[in-house]
This record gives sequence, C-alpha cells and structure tokens, in this order.
Amino acid sequence: MAPSTKRGPILGGLGLLLGLCGAAAAEEGMWTFDNPPRALLQERYGFSPDAAWLERVRLASVRFNDGGSGAFVSPHGLLLTNHHVAVGQLQKMSSAEQDYVQGGFYARELADEIKAVDLELNVLQSMDDVTARVQAVVKPGMSAQAALEARKAERARLEKESQAATGLRSEIVDLYHGGEYWLYRFKRYTDVRLVWAPEKQAAYFGGDPDNFTYPRHDLDVALFRVYAGDAPLATPHFLKVNPEGAGAGELVFISGHPGGTDRLLTLSQLELLRQGKYPFMLGYLTRALGVLREFAARGPEQARQAAVLTYSYENALKAYAGQFQGLQDPQVMAVKRAQEQSLRAGVAANPEWSRLYGDAWERIERVAQRHAAEITRRDALELWRARLLPKLVSRVLSLVLYTAEIQKPDAERLDGYHDAELEELEFISLSPAPVYKDLEAALLALGFHVLLEKLDAQAPLRRLVSGAGGPEAAARAWLEGTRLDDPAARRALWVGGRAAVEASTDPLVVFARQLEPILRENDAWMKKNVESELTPASERVARARFAVLGKSSYPDATFTLRLTFGPVQGYPMNGSQAAPFTTLHGLYDRSLGFDRRPPWDLPARFWDRRARLALDTRVNFVCQCDIIGGNSGSPVLNRAAELVGVVFDGNIESLPGRFLFDPRANRAVAVHAGYLLHALEELYDAGELADELMGRK
Amino acid sequence: MAPSTKRGPILGGLGLLLGLCGAAAAEEGMWTFDNPPRALLQERYGFSPDAAWLERVRLASVRFNDGGSGAFVSPHGLLLTNHHVAVGQLQKMSSAEQDYVQGGFYARELADEIKAVDLELNVLQSMDDVTARVQAVVKPGMSAQAALEARKAERARLEKESQAATGLRSEIVDLYHGGEYWLYRFKRYTDVRLVWAPEKQAAYFGGDPDNFTYPRHDLDVALFRVYAGDAPLATPHFLKVNPEGAGAGELVFISGHPGGTDRLLTLSQLELLRQGKYPFMLGYLTRALGVLREFAARGPEQARQAAVLTYSYENALKAYAGQFQGLQDPQVMAVKRAQEQSLRAGVAANPEWSRLYGDAWERIERVAQRHAAEITRRDALELWRARLLPKLVSRVLSLVLYTAEIQKPDAERLDGYHDAELEELEFISLSPAPVYKDLEAALLALGFHVLLEKLDAQAPLRRLVSGAGGPEAAARAWLEGTRLDDPAARRALWVGGRAAVEASTDPLVVFARQLEPILRENDAWMKKNVESELTPASERVARARFAVLGKSSYPDATFTLRLTFGPVQGYPMNGSQAAPFTTLHGLYDRSLGFDRRPPWDLPARFWDRRARLALDTRVNFVCQCDIIGGNSGSPVLNRAAELVGVVFDGNIESLPGRFLFDPRANRAVAVHAGYLLHALEELYDAGELADELMGRK
Repeated sequence: MAPSTKRGPILGGLGLLLGLCGAAAAEEGMWTFDNPPRALLQERYGFSPDAAWLERVRLASVRFNDGGSGAFVSPHGLLLTNHHVAVGQLQKMSSAEQDYVQGGFYARELADEIKAVDLELNVLQSMDDVTARVQAVVKPGMSAQAALEARKAERARLEKESQAATGLRSEIVDLYHGGEYWLYRFKRYTDVRLVWAPEKQAAYFGGDPDNFTYPRHDLDVALFRVYAGDAPLATPHFLKVNPEGAGAGELVFISGHPGGTDRLLTLSQLELLRQGKYPFMLGYLTRALGVLREFAARGPEQARQAAVLTYSYENALKAYAGQFQGLQDPQVMAVKRAQEQSLRAGVAANPEWSRLYGDAWERIERVAQRHAAEITRRDALELWRARLLPKLVSRVLSLVLYTAEIQKPDAERLDGYHDAELEELEFISLSPAPVYKDLEAALLALGFHVLLEKLDAQAPLRRLVSGAGGPEAAARAWLEGTRLDDPAARRALWVGGRAAVEASTDPLVVFARQLEPILRENDAWMKKNVESELTPASERVARARFAVLGKSSYPDATFTLRLTFGPVQGYPMNGSQAAPFTTLHGLYDRSLGFDRRPPWDLPARFWDRRARLALDTRVNFVCQCDIIGGNSGSPVLNRAAELVGVVFDGNIESLPGRFLFDPRANRAVAVHAGYLLHALEELYDAGELADELMGRK
Repeated sequence: MAPSTKRGPILGGLGLLLGLCGAAAAEEGMWTFDNPPRALLQERYGFSPDAAWLERVRLASVRFNDGGSGAFVSPHGLLLTNHHVAVGQLQKMSSAEQDYVQGGFYARELADEIKAVDLELNVLQSMDDVTARVQAVVKPGMSAQAALEARKAERARLEKESQAATGLRSEIVDLYHGGEYWLYRFKRYTDVRLVWAPEKQAAYFGGDPDNFTYPRHDLDVALFRVYAGDAPLATPHFLKVNPEGAGAGELVFISGHPGGTDRLLTLSQLELLRQGKYPFMLGYLTRALGVLREFAARGPEQARQAAVLTYSYENALKAYAGQFQGLQDPQVMAVKRAQEQSLRAGVAANPEWSRLYGDAWERIERVAQRHAAEITRRDALELWRARLLPKLVSRVLSLVLYTAEIQKPDAERLDGYHDAELEELEFISLSPAPVYKDLEAALLALGFHVLLEKLDAQAPLRRLVSGAGGPEAAARAWLEGTRLDDPAARRALWVGGRAAVEASTDPLVVFARQLEPILRENDAWMKKNVESELTPASERVARARFAVLGKSSYPDATFTLRLTFGPVQGYPMNGSQAAPFTTLHGLYDRSLGFDRRPPWDLPARFWDRRARLALDTRVNFVCQCDIIGGNSGSPVLNRAAELVGVVFDGNIESLPGRFLFDPRANRAVAVHAGYLLHALEELYDAGELADELMGRK
C-alpha cells in the first residue's frame, strides 16, 4: 500500500521452496541507531560505523509522517525520496487541468517549487532510554487495568515534559514489545516544496504486476526541498550522491523507517493474525478495489481522482496476500515454532526465569483466544479506527473525538490525543487537501456495509443509515450535505470544541456522533480484554528473550529510524539467478517484450531520446538488506556514507519477511543513483538538479 | 540433458502454486500426424491444417536419431536445429587445436562444410496402423510370457517385411501404451555436414542457471546440410523462414519428436518412479557431475573433453529434479488421482467394460510392487543397459551382445538387435568419433561403483574388478589396455562374430563378457516379472480409455513425430508476468546485470558490433505449446507453415509436464527467426546463409 499503508500493519509469506534458517540469519536485522551490530559488521566486513558516521546518517534521514522515508541530499534542503512516497502530495497538488501524477513536474527556479499541501517531516534529534521510568510506575498489587493506565499516564507525561523543555516533537517509543521504552525527539518540518517528479509511468513502470517483484526498472524517485523561514533549509546534514553506486558483493546500508514487522510475536498471536486480520483485510481490500475501479470507469476525471488510492490498495492487497501465504507456509511456521520452543526451553532451564517469565506465553495465548472469539466484529471496528476510510470522514471522526478527549487530563486520553500529539493532529485534521466528494461517498458506502455486517441488529447507527436509504444513499447524501470539505469549517469545530460538535447539524458530524460510542466501547473492550494483559505479558517475553539470548537482537519495526545492512547481491529465482543489477537495456527489453502495452508502456521522451542514453546505465539493483514498508524512499549508503541508491520496494520473496527473514531470497530493491542522475540530465533536461546532487552547484 | 538424454525418460514437478485443471487443458497435446485435433483448432482459431499442410510439414521435419529434432529450410538440404542438438557432433569434429564448441564454425563454401562423424537423421515417409495384426498373434490360453514373445516376433517380422519391400527404415511404434501399434517408415540420411554454428557462449548464454528458464536470450541454433550422393540434397520439402515471426497471441505450431511423457501411467507406476528411478537418477547424475568436474579441473584439454557431457548431465539433473518435484507435489498428484478415479468410475459403470478392463489397474499395481521390491538393483542394471555409460564401453557391450543375438532367429532376439535395427546399430557401434580414454576411465570407475554397490558379494564381476585393484584402477587399466578405441578393431569384432569375442583378450571385451550374463539375467527378469504382465494390462487400460473417453486424446510421447499448437503468450511468473518476447536489449541487460561474468559473458563480437545491431530485435519467445525433451530443434510454424522460430527449451514450470500439462504456466521457449537472420547478417558475416534461409538465393 502507498505510504500510509506501507507504514501500517502488514504480514508475509510466499512459498519458500528451500527451507529456512532457524538461527538469526546473516544480514538480518532492523537495528536501532543506539545498538548497531558493530562487532558483527567488523568481523564480517572489516568495517563498523563509528559515532560520527551514525550521527551524520541519522541527521540526514527523514521520516514522512504519512508513511515513508527520505534523505537530505544537498546543503540547500534538497530531499530525495520515492515517487510513490511523494505521489499522495502530487495528487493533492493536481487538478483536472494539471495532473502532476501523470505528467510529472520540474521547477526550474526556486520560485516555481510548489508547497506540499499537508506534508509533515520528522528528523530524529536524540534518543533516551526511559524503560526504567515507564516500568517503575507499575506497582505490585495494581490491577492490570490500573497498571496499563499508569503506564500510559507516565508516557504522556514524559512526552509533554520533553516537548516543553526542548521544543522538539517528543514521542515514547516502544521497542521489543515493551522490552524497552525510549524517548525520541524530532525536528519537525512542514514547509516542504516539490522540485521534481517523473511521470508516474516512468516511476511505476510495470504497474501492479511488477510491484513487489524483481528484475525491476523503475525511476521511483522524486525531489522535494525543505524550507525554513520561507528559505531553503541550510543544513550541513546531507548525503553526497555517488553516481558509481556500489559493486556486486559490496556492503551497503539502508537508513530509514520500517513500518512494522511481527517477528517477535508468539505463535498464538500469529495464529490470530492468520484467522482474523488477514482474511478480513484481504476481503476488504478486494472490495475496495472493486469500488475504486467502478468509480474510475465513470470518466477521466474520476479515473484521475481514484488513481493514487488505487495504487495504494493494489499495493496493500499484494503485500497482504504475500504475507498471508507466509502465515500459511508450513516451512515458515515450522521455523517460528522451533524458535519459540527453543526460547521457552531456555527459560524453563533456569528456575528464576521460569518463575518470572514461564507462563507469559500461556497468558498471551489466553488473550489471543479471547480476542479471536470476537475477531470479525473487532476487526471491522479497527478498520474505522485505522483511518483506512475515506479521508474526510476519518478527519471528521478525529475532530469529534478530539473535542471530547481534550476535556480530560492528558494521562486519561485516548492514544493520539495526548498534548504532545496535538500539533500533528491539528495539522492533519485541518488539511486543505482537495476532497473528492463522490469518491469519498463510494468508499464510505463500502465502510457502512462492512460495519453494518458486524453490528447488532438494533444499533442506532444501523437505524441512522437505514433511515437515509441504506449505505449508498446515505453516503451520497451525507457527502453532498457536508460543508466540512472546507478546512475553515473543520477549524470552526476544532476551535468550537464539544459545544460546536453537539450543536452541529452537518450530516458527517451527526454520523460521527453515532459512531463515537461504538468506537469508544471497542477501545475500552480492547484495553480491558487485550491490551491490559498483553502489555505486561509481552514485556515478560521480551525480558525472557534478553535473559536467554542477550541483547544481540533487534526490535520489531515500529516506524522508528533503523539501520540495516548487507551486500549488493542477486538471488535464486525461478530456477535461475536474479542479477544484482538491471540496466536501461532491460527497461527497453521489458517494454518491447510486451509490445509497449500498459503497464509496460513508457513516456514518449524515453523513446524520443533513446539514442542519447547510455544503455549500460544501471537502473535498479538488489541488496540483502532487511527492510519493509515504511522504508520506501530510504537512502542506500556505502561505507563512506555516500548515497548510492534509493530503496523503493522488496522483492516478492521478501513478503514473508514480516514474520521471518530469509537471507537467501529476501532482497531490497533500489533505484541506482546513476539512473537518477542520467535521467535528470538526458531525459528531463534537469542538469542543474543533477549538479546540485553531485555537489557541483 | 543434451540430445541423447532429452530423448530419454524424464519426469516433472515444480511447485505449481495455483492449482491445476483436471480436464484436458486448452492447448494440451502432442498429436500424431494421423490424428490432429482438427475440430478443436477450427473452433478455437478458425483454422485447421489440411492434408497438404500436414504432409508438407511432416516431410520437412527431421529426427536426429541420437535425440532431437530439426527442419529442412532450403531446397538445397539446409537443415536448421538447435546448437545443443548439434553440439555432440561439434565436439566430435573438434580437437585440442580446433574447438568448434567454444569458437563456433562457418563454412563459406560448400567445400568447407565438415561431415558429421556419426549423425543419423530420419524423415517420416508413411504411417500404417497395424494394431490388429500385432494383437492378433496373441491367442487365448497363451501364457503371458508366450504372448509377449509372439507380439515381439510379429513386430520384428512386420519391420523386416516393410524394410525389404520399401527400402525404408521401418519401425513398429507403440502408442497409448499398447492402445495402438503403427508401422512408421523413414528415409535415412547419414551424410550430414556442418554449415554454421555460433559460439557455445552465444547459444548457451546463461549456462546451467538459465537452462529450463525464461526470460531467455539464447542463439541456440545451428545449420547442417544434408547430402545425397555427395551433393546437397535437392528437396522440395522445406520450410520457408518468416523473419517477422508471430505476434503476441498468434497461433503457432511445433512439429517435432518429443522423447517421452508419462501422462497415461497409472498412479502405482508414478509411485514406482517416485520411489525408485528418480532418487536413483538424481543420485547418479550428481555423482557423475562430480566426476566430470574433477576431470575438467585437470587441465584445459580435459575441460574441453568433458564440456559437452557436463552440459548433458547438468541438463538431465535439472530436468529430473524439476520432474521429481512434480511427483512430490500434492496438487499435481491430486489431479492425477482424480483423473484415474474418474476413468475407473467410467469403466465400473459399464458391466462389459468392467469385465474387460476392470482389474487392469490392480494388475499393474501388483507388477509395480514386485518391481519396487528389487528396484535399486534393477535400476543400477538399467543404467548400464540405457547407455548412460561411457560411450566406448557401451559400444563394446553392444558388440558383445550383438555377436550372440545375431545367431538367433530374428524374433527371439533382444530389442535393439532385430534385423531392421542392425543398420543403425552398426553405424553407431563402429563410429569413428574420438574416444577420450581418461574421461571414459573416470566415468567407468563410477559405473563400477554403482554396479558393485548392488551386486551380490561373490559375483564374478566383483572378483574381476577387485582383482584389477578396485574400480578406479580397473577402469584406468582396461581403458589403457583396450585397442577398441580404433573403429577398425571394433569392425573386426562385428565381422568376426562370437568366435572373435570369445577369443579376444582385450580387457574391455573380457569385462563385457563378465557383464553379459548379468545383463541377460536382468533382461529375462524384467520380461518375466514386469513386461509380460504390464504389456497386456497397459493395453487394457488404453482400450478402457478409448471406450470411456473416445479417441479425443493423444498418446504419450515416444520420440515419434508430433504436432502441438498454441498461442504465443507470456505467463504469470514470480509475482508478475513473463513477457511473450525478449529482445537484444534483454540479452545485454542480463550480461551487464552480472557484470559480464560467466555464464553471462558473451563472445567479443557481441560487444564489438553492438552499435550496428537493431536492439529491438526479438531474441526468444514463449508459446503455450506442449513439448518435452526431444523436441529440441523443432520448427515453430505459423498458419502458412512458415518457420517463425526454433524451439530449444521448456520453462522451469514445464518440468512437471512430464506427468501433467498445466496451460497457465507451461511454455515452450524458442529462438525467434528474426534473431537468427540478424545474427547471421550482422554478427557472423554470413549474409549468404541468411539469403538462403529467406529464399533470396
């Protein structure tokens, strides 16, 4: 799924034909910057990044808060990321008259750069371990629920305190499923302007079929510029671009923000995913794509409006499907089983560990069983909570909840509404991004169907929707009637608070007020029946892992900054070998092999200018680095911390990596730095940008 | 495996991830020329080949008797086939000084063409159904053994009678496992001269890794010229080459000689293959490749000598491994089970059929169980019988057996020694092809190991080998001591008969005399315990199939001429789609993607002349035609019976096709006619050959 979902929860599992390593694999690991595997790197590659290297890379690494990664690549705030990370903003800047998604964009002058509508970037400034402080608030004898609340209160307090002291966006980060808590502080940027983007068809050549596969031939890159005080950000923290790239077998690093993995989950939690979330999400995404395709068929403007969301949903569907196969793969699950058995045997062999941690797995299993019994209903409600819904509806819901939460003490609020989170919430809720009301209505109708299929027969919400003529009619009427597509109307609610919400007759607010108690009940149910028991049990599993295995491991991905490494390397594919590199020759071969038919067609400039291109130019490459959705746009670096590529995907074999990393075939796919520069110069007449990237400007 | 083994028995089974069609699939079928699926073709493509089309194609289609196919492509006897079909002859023409395998070959003048050492070609002239005559000799009350002998005698008689009457090589062909017997008559050609072959590295680009895979980029073609009376054969039966090839989705045909399929075997026979032959062959081939690689490491001349056999064995190992996976694939076997159950249910529903055929499956199962009990010993002996051994040793064995068989009435001889078969036997046994004694010794030692592992402890052969110092020493000494590498010495035995064999002290003859009774015992055991019961039971299964399903089906492949058809079409691959075509762009991309490292390096001319090539030229393509080993070198034809390509491989997904055709992913891989012509003109300065192929000469 596009940025927002690549960050979200995703799983994995293509048939791994060979058999999987049980032990922690060679180049496995999404390491936090406080704990890179220095000894292992030194031993295997004779190189280990020092503190200066790590700081330089960290301060050049950028998180896109709606999902994705990027890097500063010039002292003038130039920011390199993926086209598919930028495309949501491209869509928001576009109109029926001017479509930057299809046609690309290039600002020859600073004055031509277009401000992104609602893009927030974060750069990690510092990290402090606050595990002891978070865990200290849980006192013996506290009920599970009280302990959960105490923990949440302490987290909110720490965030608010830090924010007040430093002025930096502060966030408590949960690592190893509660094994550690860290306070991360971020510099926040919201004045971000588009500099250059290729046509979607160059960036996304091969479309959905080639997505998550390799060999690949995508120019999946875009350039923004970060501004501060209405001037390009002057920064010493940027990565130099090396157009030669890295050779086959050469060690490379990736610094970015993997959204989420589930490698440390217990077997019972994996089983819950296999039974619940995956079938539900596959079903939902399939239906949503049906809605989007039907909408796009109405006309060219509808097709334009639906395009980016369609890529997102196709991407998510392919990812979920591949991950689901992993959950169903007997070989994958056999390794997971062996790993858990081995860890539990290690605990059982030590009486003290046994007493402290021994029953944690059974506890988690009990929680999972309780959750499983209600899974379809809960998943349907989580869908609404997870903001997978139409954007405007989801923003109105947030506003309504906000007006209630803001009246409570910080510590007692729902997650997402703590003081330290309000700046971002306001920024997103009041976004001036265009609203496609007809598209929202089509997806809202599907959301109603999903919700009503699971709700009790007599619920007020059901009556409300029925009273409006059923899901389709209600969605159409409410979108037609709402004025909240105007950001000013949303601002009025934000400022007006609960009284304004209660007084509003806007149909989306009326609906949101009906939904609110249902979501609150669900949240309370999840806290009471799942979270309050899962949190301490997961913490105990994490401590057991530290006790048995030491801290030689890395935490599951959580959309926090991570460093991963590995050699540039092909892999066994379909009876043969995938090459480490593809070239411009390969791009033309694949287009011609399909008679230049979509999605293997190319923008006209690729044909008009073919003769002037160096066809040996490397286009994409694969490396044995451990990444997942959220890493999109991450820089690929050599030992000198020079940028040699930009990661944009994993291969199809990497999808089960959500649960288990297989170094034999799991590969990250990147745009080669040389292709970006050659394309800027020869295809896009943007030699000045190439110069800026090369430090020649 | 190269020609000789592609023809041999091979199985199939790569994990088909999706699920298989139970019914006879769309473009499935290797049809005999007497029974093409005319109605189906007419219905699906609005085209059906008429008698003239079929005759024209049949008389232009050529069988390479050591395995492989080809086609006449000019009125002057020019013959197009695969490089890997020709490579055995290239090796035999080469020497330490002049290596045509590595360096390629081109005869600018007729006088420069080099005669192939021991190549026999056959062209099918006529076909007569003799089922009634063969089956009539089996009388009620005959023992199984007597019936088998009567059948064999009648077959030998029919062959001899036809050969005497027509002067044509005559062969009784067994179709549908005894459902039909046909008399095929062939024109025989043994004066065949090499005209052109590319370097092995252009033909076999990607080597063993890319073998049996796609996308592919091989110039796997070679040109011979057939002579008659020391002059180029003047023939009206040739195919015109169409350089445009066929478009995506266009119907094409392939006319050639698929070596063997096992689609009509019963479940118990498949189980026997899974338990016996496959594990045995995979083990043997792995060991043999070890021997070959060790031999090749001794020096460049040894590497040259071992090269072609190494390709063969690598090819066989990859094929067997893929097929074996098919036999172990639950989805493949579930379809096979459903097919057999459905056929047996059809039989059971009709009392007459039930009486005639009902117990045939149990009979076959009993035979299979009896065979299984001795399978490792029998497979080891079959290995010696199957001529997988070093060539010289295998020829001496044939000579020794010949001198005994020739003394018996034709009807009583072992298969391979009937009168109608002697011309070919003599041609091969007395071949003047070079003998690499050290290489023969290395493989013979392995043959001894395999044999002795299975023989009774006190067998005379064991004593003979032990007496000579064990397998390695015996093999070395006997190859050193033999004079039979000289064809004249072999001719002396052929002419001298049994007396000469008995009198010989040549160590290979002494050894062959010891092996002879062991092989005869095995042959007798197989006849008595397997063949005599299997033949009538298989005939009954075949008749049952005709009864229940009609003759809408095609027989298993038996290295007889077949016609197959289907559209040019890509397929789902590795999460995306394989394109119908590859181009010269793709060739360079794949070489560059691996930094031009072997086996993805290319001859220098490909780099020197890159600028003059039309890089859009199609190189290889895939079509949904049903082929298997033995089809190598077959022409791909359009509706006008023009040659648009030359088949050289199946994709990795096609390997389970030995047992079950899956139209979704099973594809034939062909060299595009346009690539052959462009390469002749621009890379090989052989424009005259291109002109001859295009009819411009």
